[in-house]
Amino acid sequence: MDHAVKHFGYTLLKQDRSARLGEIVTPRGVIRTPAFMPVGTVATVKALYPEQVKEAGADILLGNTYHLMLRPGAERIARLGGLHKFMRWDGPILTDSGGFQVMSLSTIRKITEEGAQFQSHIDGSKHMLTPERSIEIQCLLGSDIQMQFDECIQLPAERKEVERSMELSLRWAERSKRAFEQQVAMGGARPGQALFAIVQGGVDRDLRQRSARALVEMGFPGYAIGGLAVGEGHEAMVATLEETVPHLPQDKPRYLMGVGTPQDLIESVRRGIDMFDCVMPTRNGRHGMAFTWSGRVNLHNARHAEDLAPLDPESTCPAARDYSRAYLHHLVKAGEYLGAMILSWTNTVFYQDLMAAMRAAIAEGRFEAWADDTKTRLAQKG
Amino acid sequence: MDHAVKHFGYTLLKQDRSARLGEIVTPRGVIRTPAFMPVGTVATVKALYPEQVKEAGADILLGNTYHLMLRPGAERIARLGGLHKFMRWDGPILTDSGGFQVMSLSTIRKITEEGAQFQSHIDGSKHMLTPERSIEIQCLLGSDIQMQFDECIQLPAERKEVERSMELSLRWAERSKRAFEQQVAMGGARPGQALFAIVQGGVDRDLRQRSARALVEMGFPGYAIGGLAVGEGHEAMVATLEETVPHLPQDKPRYLMGVGTPQDLIESVRRGIDMFDCVMPTRNGRHGMAFTWSGRVNLHNARHAEDLAPLDPESTCPAARDYSRAYLHHLVKAGEYLGAMILSWTNTVFYQDLMAAMRAAIAEGRFEAWADDTKTRLAQKG
Repeated sequence: MDHAVKHFGYTLLKQDRSARLGEIVTPRGVIRTPAFMPVGTVATVKALYPEQVKEAGADILLGNTYHLMLRPGAERIARLGGLHKFMRWDGPILTDSGGFQVMSLSTIRKITEEGAQFQSHIDGSKHMLTPERSIEIQCLLGSDIQMQFDECIQLPAERKEVERSMELSLRWAERSKRAFEQQVAMGGARPGQALFAIVQGGVDRDLRQRSARALVEMGFPGYAIGGLAVGEGHEAMVATLEETVPHLPQDKPRYLMGVGTPQDLIESVRRGIDMFDCVMPTRNGRHGMAFTWSGRVNLHNARHAEDLAPLDPESTCPAARDYSRAYLHHLVKAGEYLGAMILSWTNTVFYQDLMAAMRAAIAEGRFEAWADDTKTRLAQKG
Repeated sequence: MDHAVKHFGYTLLKQDRSARLGEIVTPRGVIRTPAFMPVGTVATVKALYPEQVKEAGADILLGNTYHLMLRPGAERIARLGGLHKFMRWDGPILTDSGGFQVMSLSTIRKITEEGAQFQSHIDGSKHMLTPERSIEIQCLLGSDIQMQFDECIQLPAERKEVERSMELSLRWAERSKRAFEQQVAMGGARPGQALFAIVQGGVDRDLRQRSARALVEMGFPGYAIGGLAVGEGHEAMVATLEETVPHLPQDKPRYLMGVGTPQDLIESVRRGIDMFDCVMPTRNGRHGMAFTWSGRVNLHNARHAEDLAPLDPESTCPAARDYSRAYLHHLVKAGEYLGAMILSWTNTVFYQDLMAAMRAAIAEGRFEAWADDTKTRLAQKG
């Protein structure tokens, strides 16, 4: 950790229409934006060594509060010296608040004003997450960027229901902020750690704007857009971004949660988003699906069985150049660990290479042309 | 490949009582003996990158004829340039003959004088392995050391049955030798590739001696002892070695197939064995069991849950020193890829470190003392 830096800050370095090149400074290092955060759900980016994640170019990764509170437990991680030491990652870590997983993974949920009651998907044990407990857990984990506790509802939903949920999340934002400030005062949070707010409101323009304005009014060092990529479709997602981003401050980072495909990332950066996370590169890798600069490749497909070509000669990942598609096809068909390992690795590198290419294009003022060209290339059958 | 060397040869460098320090020269490189061969069943040492296997110190690895003939198929691997290129391993490879897996994995076997009929454990398809086909497959794979086709029976068995089987394996040895010589004549085998014989005979002293003598009479560049570690127990295995090894020539390598625990390896080297293979390091690694210099460690055990100590400070594997036992416990409990990856790696390195330590002890004429001391250490609860 760089003890010289004790603050958290965002600098907008260059803007190319709405696309932003920036940098987030934290005590644990600089995050170059637009940034993609590999997901280390249960304190490991699945099937990758931490060195591979770092070498791929990731400045920050994401940990899941829901998973880690259940196993191995936040208090245990704190006793072991915090999440960074536990998983051997010395760069910044962002933790989500647990709200999304309570909805998507746990059973027997009961949402009240107080918080969310749920049963663990692992052993059925009962747990309660509130804004205060979520912040406490994130402080125990020692994450550098923490997220407010929010409710995340499945779309489509009635407007009334979306509104009720958005307003609950606003009240939870206030409680999260207060809890975080108390942690700072008590020494539970360290200088330079930051709490981000989450804009909710489904795909409703008016609700999104109300949510964004209320959160900006409260004042946070960063703003996320949550509750998207839950079934509303690419067009609705992009439209919601266009309606929401203008209501967020220029001088704070903007994080689109849980997104997405390479095309999603390009279209979101085009609309001013700075940060992303998604399980797609590793999950798809485990399922034999590769992202390449000439499109997606399904390695289960028999057409690769005798193809000596490498997966992606343009990748900066050695594995994408060294192994033949025939070998990867074999590994995937045989269900071998190495298949998941290689493809999780090449996909993770692809996502980082994609972000680096976006940053370079913005820096050189040619993002629009780059984006159109790249989307065409990525739409190929790889 | 070192094209300067076109022959296969074994040199006994030093003997310490019965323990032997030696070196097998092949066109693809030198194998320092005693050697342990990591098992790359379906063209991958499970959960390891080939670079990790190499860096662990392995000079040679093993591929399984049975698995590879079924998936992806020997002819396919030949069309793709051979097994070495396919799996990115440029050192020597030994392939077994398929006999053992026909017994242990396939269903509906019919053994005749001609060979073994069986059904694939993958898709139920019907296959026939004969000595001639086994050698043909091994030549298609391009392995540097090939094994005769043999029958491998489950112990305990009636003496009559063991005798019948041993004699069948002798006739198959002759046919394997003839088939290999034909491959050499036709260019299907390359100069410097070698065919090893397999001594059978269960735990019967007389049958083992008859098998060994008959095979030595035929003349092979190396001799394996097969049909052990199939349920007869450590004592019977060691006794069989003591009765068999004296009937093998001094100037040829001796390979004990499918063995074993660290203690098995030490006792076998003590009795003059030069080569081993076993799935134990990687299989145990996938199941949360680690080999360390202070004994076996079951990482499922709750006593590791908050243990910040590394797995094995004496290991030459970085992962055995870098990760805490608490983290490994967490990964194993959560069933994460990284747990299997790390423990397969540290176990593979442990086995190579063990062989290196044996070679050093023999070189310095202190094998007996080293062996007794090491067995005591390894019997600890790690």
